[in-house]
Parts: sequence; structure tokens; C-alpha cells
Amino acid sequence: MTKGPDFARGIDGLLPAIAQDANTREVLMMAWMNQEAYQETIRSGFATYYSRSRMKLWHKGEESGHRQRVIEVRIDCDADCILVLVEQTGAACHEGYASCFFRKATQDGFLTDKVRLVDPESVYSPKKSPDTE
Amino acid sequence: MTKGPDFARGIDGLLPAIAQDANTREVLMMAWMNQEAYQETIRSGFATYYSRSRMKLWHKGEESGHRQRVIEVRIDCDADCILVLVEQTGAACHEGYASCFFRKATQDGFLTDKVRLVDPESVYSPKKSPDTE
Repeated sequence: MTKGPDFARGIDGLLPAIAQDANTREVLMMAWMNQEAYQETIRSGFATYYSRSRMKLWHKGEESGHRQRVIEVRIDCDADCILVLVEQTGAACHEGYASCFFRKATQDGFLTDKVRLVDPESVYSPKKSPDTE
Repeated sequence: MTKGPDFARGIDGLLPAIAQDANTREVLMMAWMNQEAYQETIRSGFATYYSRSRMKLWHKGEESGHRQRVIEVRIDCDADCILVLVEQTGAACHEGYASCFFRKATQDGFLTDKVRLVDPESVYSPKKSPDTE
């Protein structure tokens, strides 16, 4: 039995957190959690990260409505990386794609090989910051 | 078209890199790549990371033989996280599990709910460092 994520091993108290779609198994995004974000994720049942640019908790989907309902939380062998399996509402990516990893390496550079699900402009108001760290 | 990972956005030039099994879609591990590790990954076709503890390139599986053949390389919207889809030989985790994420959050703490594939002692010699960052 293990206590849980070891935030002392983090970078400034932040651990990388990977969100994976519990149904499609697609890797959706990678963001950061501090202890508070992790506890809020567990408490609320919705993925909550720490925004390094805004320097505050980031309730994923708070503006876009594209929330991530937590199905399962896992930690890695060193307890310094968190994997969250989620049910994603809408698009995980602030650019409107299901996953932030919508670009693939090819001989000609990185090319988008995914279809945009939503128009970002329909989701984010110009006055507010988009749903990204 | 995008050039590729933006290592200037990394932490000390390091970007998080997620390895996902191209067949099972299981998230196997998370490690770090600097530009050199990334270029070696592309050049060799096998996942290569940067070991923060050993402060050098880490050819995944160089001791254990548990290499990761690269099937696909993706980057996220901000070009500051790398997703590598791989064909994993043996176990990704130095503790002998297919994935490093072998522990799951439960009401009673984190519990191992995966089966160990290999005995770590049969893979790593006592004199050498195990296949982890």
C-alpha cells in the first residue's frame, strides 16, 4: 500500500499529470498538479490542475464546460507522476480537438491528422483566458 | 505545419515525454527528453530519454533489453509535451510491470492491481543502475 503522489519529488511542488480518455484510451493532455489540485480532483471528482501561467488552481473546463469526470486515478512507480482516466465532455484541447496531441511527426514535419470537434471561438469568450495552462 | 517540440519551453531544456503502448493503448511511463534525446529517438527509432538522476541520455532498455520501438511521435498544442506510441519489449517499468502506473487510488490508499510480468532481479545486475530515470 502506498500513500499517494509524492509532491516533495515534484518541480516546485508540481507533478506531471496525464489525462487519458477512459473510453477511447486516447491520451488527452498533460498538465500539472500540486497537492491542492490533486486533493480537489479527488474531492470533486473532476480533474483539477495547477496553471503555471496563471499561478492558481485550474478547474479544467470551468469556462468551456469541457470538464473531465474522474474515473480512475493512478500513480507511477516513483509516485511522481499521476495518471487520471477521465470521461471527457467536449474537447480536451483549447484548440478544439479531442486531444491536445493532434499533431503527428512525419517526414515533412508535424502535421495535424485529427478533426477539430469544436470551434474554440464558440467556447471561449474573448475577455477570458482559454482553457489551457 | 509545425517544426516540432519546443525545447525552449522546457524545464532546463527538458520536456515531459509520455510513452503509450501502440497496441494496448496503455500509458506505460512518463520520462523526460532534451533535444538530444528526442533526436536520438527519431534517428534510432527507439525511445531515448534524458535521465535527470544520471544526467545523461538514457537509451530505454539498454540494460534490461526492454526497449521501446517507436511507432508514432506526437506533440501537444503547445509543443511542450511529447507523446510516443511504442511497441514495448518486456516490461516498461523497472519494477517488472507492463506499465509504471500499476497502482490505483482506492478508499484504502493506492493498491497494486496489475500483475508483475518479470522479476526485476532477473533483469538488472546488482552493480548497474536499474532502467529508470
